[in-house]
Amino acid sequence: MSTPSLLILAGDGIGPEVMTEVRKIIDWFGAKRDLAFDVSEDLVGGAAYDVHGVPLADETMAKAQEVDAVLLGAVGGPKYDDLDFSVKPERGLLRLRKEMDLFSNLRPAQCFDALADFSSLKKDVVAGLDIMIVRELTSGIYFGEPRGISVNANGEREGVNTQRYTESEIARVARSAFELAKRRGNKVCSMEKANVMESGILWREVVQKVHDEEYPDVELSHMYADAGGMQLCRWPKQFDVIVTDNLFGDLLSDVAAMLTGSLGMLPSASLGAPMENGRPKALYEPVHGSAPDIAGQGKANPIACILSFAMALRYSFDQGAEADRLEKAVEKVLADGLRTADLMGPEGGSPVSTSAMGDAIVAAL
Amino acid sequence: MSTPSLLILAGDGIGPEVMTEVRKIIDWFGAKRDLAFDVSEDLVGGAAYDVHGVPLADETMAKAQEVDAVLLGAVGGPKYDDLDFSVKPERGLLRLRKEMDLFSNLRPAQCFDALADFSSLKKDVVAGLDIMIVRELTSGIYFGEPRGISVNANGEREGVNTQRYTESEIARVARSAFELAKRRGNKVCSMEKANVMESGILWREVVQKVHDEEYPDVELSHMYADAGGMQLCRWPKQFDVIVTDNLFGDLLSDVAAMLTGSLGMLPSASLGAPMENGRPKALYEPVHGSAPDIAGQGKANPIACILSFAMALRYSFDQGAEADRLEKAVEKVLADGLRTADLMGPEGGSPVSTSAMGDAIVAAL
Ligand SMILES: CC(C)[C@H](C(=O)O)[C@@H](O)C(=O)O
Ligand SMILES: CC(C)[C@H](C(=O)O)[C@@H](O)C(=O)O
Repeated sequence: MSTPSLLILAGDGIGPEVMTEVRKIIDWFGAKRDLAFDVSEDLVGGAAYDVHGVPLADETMAKAQEVDAVLLGAVGGPKYDDLDFSVKPERGLLRLRKEMDLFSNLRPAQCFDALADFSSLKKDVVAGLDIMIVRELTSGIYFGEPRGISVNANGEREGVNTQRYTESEIARVARSAFELAKRRGNKVCSMEKANVMESGILWREVVQKVHDEEYPDVELSHMYADAGGMQLCRWPKQFDVIVTDNLFGDLLSDVAAMLTGSLGMLPSASLGAPMENGRPKALYEPVHGSAPDIAGQGKANPIACILSFAMALRYSFDQGAEADRLEKAVEKVLADGLRTADLMGPEGGSPVSTSAMGDAIVAAL
Repeated sequence: MSTPSLLILAGDGIGPEVMTEVRKIIDWFGAKRDLAFDVSEDLVGGAAYDVHGVPLADETMAKAQEVDAVLLGAVGGPKYDDLDFSVKPERGLLRLRKEMDLFSNLRPAQCFDALADFSSLKKDVVAGLDIMIVRELTSGIYFGEPRGISVNANGEREGVNTQRYTESEIARVARSAFELAKRRGNKVCSMEKANVMESGILWREVVQKVHDEEYPDVELSHMYADAGGMQLCRWPKQFDVIVTDNLFGDLLSDVAAMLTGSLGMLPSASLGAPMENGRPKALYEPVHGSAPDIAGQGKANPIACILSFAMALRYSFDQGAEADRLEKAVEKVLADGLRTADLMGPEGGSPVSTSAMGDAIVAAL
């Protein structure tokens, strides 16, 4: 097979800093494990807007379609707050998700042993937590038409967005949740608001049908999304895989991430259909945002982005053992007590810089 | 003024049991504080469906429009799971909210001192917590048209719901949040997804405008709803009043309620425009659901429903001092160590029954 290709879109805020550390990791795998990547870089978000006047240039979009995997840092920042909706940094990311058809967004919410004390939740509630949220990423209210702000019959302005899900859109993300569950705890909980939304009724029905016809041996339950949010806060360990729509997934995965106390630590994978070479279309990015308040200060935690590369090793390049190796290296530096500023408890301590953390992980490898 | 009127809709599951305890409280205020109410009762939810074939009869709806306040228990249960969407128990509640035009749903998330240990969050994160979530209750994706399940151009079934907000709908709920904030910590945080939804852009703009023109002295901030969910879990005490739409409010208020450890304890008020007598249209109900698994066993905690009556005293009947009295009585029985089954920690203990809890609160009054 030819050298696998990676497109790096570092984006805005702390994106470039954390990506610099990921480059060190990529280089290490090339030098020491004979796992070379053909890496190219390009712009997304505000950084792309500054150069091209759009948050994702067509040429960048075309490149993203061709590579084996995209690695994204973060997008957005106050500098771009007043831009028109259509060119906001976020639109660059949303265009990538939509045009690459990355329908299955995997968001692990994992509590790192060394950080269990750092959660706002009690230690016994989160220690050892390891759940996977599968969020639908290319449909629902994020993309449904009609949408926009217009003047209605009473002469008043009205904001409209449309939640829209077809059976096949629901079925394919459900399948990806069941597949994951089979390799984990064999349990899926599907969340919607079928008690108030018809799109939720269809969601529940299709997930149940995919289960009954294709995955009868996986344990399936359904929960209203509000109750799901509650249960995540009460006793998250009751869950293994959660599957939910684009908007609920946005909220619930953020809540779950925060619970772990490891927000600066959590990666994500956004996967689409298999390409000709058998690899899924794929984009990997940290769950955290661009954190403009600390950008450029060497304070950012590169671990979420580094673990996103570990997910790329696992899901795009079939290198599960190498992914494990990288994850173990991260665990080791944490167990050794290394902490970036975001991981300092109220007691304080002396945080290490972004690049010192990257170097330590390379050393641990 | 004539005797104020109360319509009690006990509903399903534990609704009737907890309402029995509220009746004791109402009777006490009539006998001891010269605060008599003209109380009538009727059916809602599954209980109404069993008798009328609909979850809210037209006559009940008419009564609700006429009384000074409605007190609701809870609706729903597995018995009704397979009913058609249009007659599900929840539709009865949604019809009340919509036709009474109860646009402002007040959901306090308060941590009772005696229960701070009971939260899944660390004690210092929740002790003393007192925030108020103001949820828009009559519009948004709960009620927007078009909606339903239909077959699309590709011959596939598609589920559709529409999020729709007009300027005036946003402005009126924003006003109610600012008014509340003035009598509390003078801070409002508005939550939406203006980064991905145009309805969120309009929401943010209108809230800001109402602020600038009418409440410039209240501190206003905006947060994306996913970040809001995170922040609620991380450090909820940063908030005073949160204002958000119907769907985000559903999720975020449930998360906030769970954080307090006091879910069985939390009341809510749903308020509309003032009636001719100056009182707002109003419905009061506990935040918890119908809990069919423990219904009829004397295990339910009546406090949320009793505190909902306290909110009625405060918001409908201008009896703030009497509401305080009732809330103090509740605090006293908790401080005395009385606990219903839902408030038993993992250590266990001997819970009191629903009616024993009601009696104790009457005694504490
Ligand atoms: C940046 C934003 C558009 C995005 C989303 O809402 O999907 C983010 O919150 C996320 O969860 O990836
Ligand atoms: C019962 C249900 C229709 C309701 C809602 O979704 O609004 C409930 O969850 C609530 O929060 O009051």
